[in-house]
Amino acid sequence: MDLWYSELHTDNVKFSIKIEKQLHSSQSEFQRIDVFDSVEYGRFLTLDGYLMLTEKDDFIYHEMLVHIPLAVNLGIKKVLVIGAGNGGVARELTDYKTIEQIDVVEIDEQLVEVAKEFFPYEARGFEDKRVKLYVQDALKFMRHSKIKYDLIIVDSSDPYGPGEVLFTKEFYGHCYNILEENGILVNQHESPFYENDANILKRIHKRISKTFEVSQIYEAHIPSFPAGHWTFGFASKGLNAIKDLQADAWNALDIDTEYYNTDLHCGAFALPNYVKELLK
Amino acid sequence: MDLWYSELHTDNVKFSIKIEKQLHSSQSEFQRIDVFDSVEYGRFLTLDGYLMLTEKDDFIYHEMLVHIPLAVNLGIKKVLVIGAGNGGVARELTDYKTIEQIDVVEIDEQLVEVAKEFFPYEARGFEDKRVKLYVQDALKFMRHSKIKYDLIIVDSSDPYGPGEVLFTKEFYGHCYNILEENGILVNQHESPFYENDANILKRIHKRISKTFEVSQIYEAHIPSFPAGHWTFGFASKGLNAIKDLQADAWNALDIDTEYYNTDLHCGAFALPNYVKELLK
Repeated sequence: MDLWYSELHTDNVKFSIKIEKQLHSSQSEFQRIDVFDSVEYGRFLTLDGYLMLTEKDDFIYHEMLVHIPLAVNLGIKKVLVIGAGNGGVARELTDYKTIEQIDVVEIDEQLVEVAKEFFPYEARGFEDKRVKLYVQDALKFMRHSKIKYDLIIVDSSDPYGPGEVLFTKEFYGHCYNILEENGILVNQHESPFYENDANILKRIHKRISKTFEVSQIYEAHIPSFPAGHWTFGFASKGLNAIKDLQADAWNALDIDTEYYNTDLHCGAFALPNYVKELLK
Repeated sequence: MDLWYSELHTDNVKFSIKIEKQLHSSQSEFQRIDVFDSVEYGRFLTLDGYLMLTEKDDFIYHEMLVHIPLAVNLGIKKVLVIGAGNGGVARELTDYKTIEQIDVVEIDEQLVEVAKEFFPYEARGFEDKRVKLYVQDALKFMRHSKIKYDLIIVDSSDPYGPGEVLFTKEFYGHCYNILEENGILVNQHESPFYENDANILKRIHKRISKTFEVSQIYEAHIPSFPAGHWTFGFASKGLNAIKDLQADAWNALDIDTEYYNTDLHCGAFALPNYVKELLK
């Protein structure tokens, strides 16, 4: 028997992974959640059919969301993580002893439960005593937030379904308001390659650029994502991802990474001409 | 009707492109040659079923083979191109007025004919009067070469079939011998992500490192290639791809590129930790 999971990256391009077994399938209040085991990508999670996280390459995504801002501002103490119901971002953050508070806001409790059961290596992020999980709508959480954060990481799914609100002007405005002066917003920014994805990237970048003084884009090779070419946004009220990089201080922390390093940090912001053209 | 071209990137991962029409299929003395039209990637070429070149993203591959060495040594006059029966590398090289001689050695005449018919925008490289095409075995050509080159570009297919010889120690030895003191060898180096590809990458890098004083690896996002994550080798008798980059001089040439720029040049050599680990 051959069992294949396929995702249409566009109407005309398909990416398929051979499946050993489907481990889980459920419909939460917000989305369909599936878990599969595969030879090539290990265990992986899909939401509404879209691949979100694989055991083989999730380290790239999580490291690029976490270490880029931390290497620019090593004074980060309070972190808000939005989405990321699987715990992977929180897990990566707990490597930093200087971080005091990690609030994770995830709207879908069922997703958290599935992650705990099937991705324990990710979900162990939730076990750290600095991590607090809020099962809540992100906008509501932010409207009522009394504290200011040094870092907001938006680990959203695509801008459809429950993730849609995380791509609005209102959302970015709230991010700005609850960030400290030296605060940083980092978010996943879609792919620049296929037209639909690139249009989303343009729209996100435009909105963030209108809200934040500094808005930079960086990229990574994530093979299980469309085109294998993914981008992230770095936004702040003044900190510059390259000029303010504290490479020596970050390297002195001796944090173990499989993808990120401080040379790659700078390299990731050196965009191809066609991507720069998109962002104009 | 749905017509899909599929390539197995591993036994367990498949990449598929929806086809409008198959335009050509033939068996040359060396390999099977196919040409397809598609909505997403435009026209594309496969050799023995493996995707080699698409209208949509070939600019990335060709620019990264050509501009990286040229921006390090702007004095390059004589270039040897091996493989590249489609003419794309030659076309990119003809942008440099300082280049005097471009010898293209391709073993498969039928591939050149197919390229001329179906990829005229690539094959116009052959029309420049500095370009000479030798339909010949590369090793034989090099053994009898009387002249020394400033740059050798190896635009090979994978190390199976006719491309296999272009990955041998003997081949790299010949490259060394016919390169000038300031000469550079650039070649495609496979992907670091899937295990089989990564093993080839390791083997190539080891062989080149034994032959050349300098052996560096750089990477690019090429969505139609396995994992979308591709590497290239830069080898020389002394020139360093980063330290000897002549960014200002290259930028003064005002060459139009869609992917390459001199910031990205440096970024492309900043490898992820897991790739650095492979190369140890």
